[in-house]
Amino acid sequence: MAGEASIRVTCAQFEPRIGEVARNRETSLTLISQAADEGADLVVLPELCQSGYVIESRKEAFSLAETAPGGPTIEAWIGLARERGIHLVAGFLERDEDRLFNSAVVIGPDGIIGTYRKNHLWDAEALFFERGNRNFPIFHTPFGRLGVLICYDGWFPEAWRLLALAGADIVCVPTNWVPMPKQPQGLPAMANLLCMTAAHVNSFVVAACDRIGTERGQPFIGQSLIVDHTGWPVAGPASMDQPAMISAEVDLAAARRGRNWNSFNQIVRDRRSDLYGETLGSAAIPDLQ
Amino acid sequence: MAGEASIRVTCAQFEPRIGEVARNRETSLTLISQAADEGADLVVLPELCQSGYVIESRKEAFSLAETAPGGPTIEAWIGLARERGIHLVAGFLERDEDRLFNSAVVIGPDGIIGTYRKNHLWDAEALFFERGNRNFPIFHTPFGRLGVLICYDGWFPEAWRLLALAGADIVCVPTNWVPMPKQPQGLPAMANLLCMTAAHVNSFVVAACDRIGTERGQPFIGQSLIVDHTGWPVAGPASMDQPAMISAEVDLAAARRGRNWNSFNQIVRDRRSDLYGETLGSAAIPDLQ
Repeated sequence: MAGEASIRVTCAQFEPRIGEVARNRETSLTLISQAADEGADLVVLPELCQSGYVIESRKEAFSLAETAPGGPTIEAWIGLARERGIHLVAGFLERDEDRLFNSAVVIGPDGIIGTYRKNHLWDAEALFFERGNRNFPIFHTPFGRLGVLICYDGWFPEAWRLLALAGADIVCVPTNWVPMPKQPQGLPAMANLLCMTAAHVNSFVVAACDRIGTERGQPFIGQSLIVDHTGWPVAGPASMDQPAMISAEVDLAAARRGRNWNSFNQIVRDRRSDLYGETLGSAAIPDLQ
Repeated sequence: MAGEASIRVTCAQFEPRIGEVARNRETSLTLISQAADEGADLVVLPELCQSGYVIESRKEAFSLAETAPGGPTIEAWIGLARERGIHLVAGFLERDEDRLFNSAVVIGPDGIIGTYRKNHLWDAEALFFERGNRNFPIFHTPFGRLGVLICYDGWFPEAWRLLALAGADIVCVPTNWVPMPKQPQGLPAMANLLCMTAAHVNSFVVAACDRIGTERGQPFIGQSLIVDHTGWPVAGPASMDQPAMISAEVDLAAARRGRNWNSFNQIVRDRRSDLYGETLGSAAIPDLQ
């Protein structure tokens, strides 16, 4: 059901293999092509899907890294996005001189739009990666404003909120979610709930693409999902352990309009920035419509 | 299973009646006594449970208001908390000279500890109430640091976060949750999810006490719940439409210790306050252990 600004978003959940860069590239290209065949306007791939996740040494990390532009996977993605006329958000191990970042590249039909570098590093990532140094950028596309967070970033409500305050219509989340303690039966994964509540209180779409499989003993939990601006899933959660292609038509105009809840309440503008003060507050970043 | 700093928390979900202040008082006293009989250390009651919620005019609002201290319901609560040696967090319609607030009083065995005034007003509340003017206080108790949010406050991640940064071990949420659009079958209410994700990313306990019933055409959704610092329910969600007393033993020391997740990550200290900047950032409020 097409709205004023509908696009078809697809998350391609798969199992990258640590160190098998050429194989990961081929897999990703196959999945992107398949998504495009099925009508995708925007394809999201997992975190570090070009390299694999569980790195054992800095030497190994450097051996797997690519630059953007220039890296072979990045260039292949650029070529395919141009060929198919689609947008793509995909995680890769980025080298910038002698620094490494856990990054996601945002590519359109005309090439790289920008790169996001993960700001909140998880556990042993701190041994290999530098923390992101490009803040929380908005990437402008013909269909609207796009933000990116990677995995553990999603545990920080500030990260989602900054994207909302900068006007994000959709937040893409390449991720490699690991199991959380005490997950009960019958409830979604906490990682899924974080996407749902963030979408709800910020009125934007969230498209989170996870990986599956166990790598060097570390299991990942799949369950990729797409939630609309009300916070409820419109595709997924996908399987915990199988590859999956999930897709949804999402209306970014509805997300942008949807912040207005009644005569008095606009969910983002209702922020009491006068109270959040120097800590979580003021109006330094414009509250865009 | 008692931990280092365990307390028994009880949420008494019931149906206040608009305008029937004496009746609401009697109901609340009965429920508090019952909770104390069953071993409660801390009892949480719903938002505006002394007055009812759906107010029709400013005149009616003023007629239902009480002062704290001094109001008959407040004084009855103080007396019972003293008699039973318990703590109590309860919503009431507060008058302060010619201003009204949607407030919650925090009472201990020695009397009033403080009052929280709802900072984020929902819909027609804006016609009767002033916005809270006491920030997000921490109330100190022998069992730990207690914060309070009321209903729509919970839609603002900043509110939860400020309490975490001020060291809250438990957040009590007197509430009158109304239905949210598009609630799917088989998933918890979004209001419940907001409590769960907030507890998880801040590592504190959340005890949310809702009302039930339909008042002047406005339905409320019940589903009171208590979640531990990992974000998962330990009591509730309660019924959508029946009175309910839900209780859990929660370990506030575990919540305080629980912020440390691995060698590198402490979930609150991992905030990139350097990036959140003037908007959601800096370290003006001390990050207490």
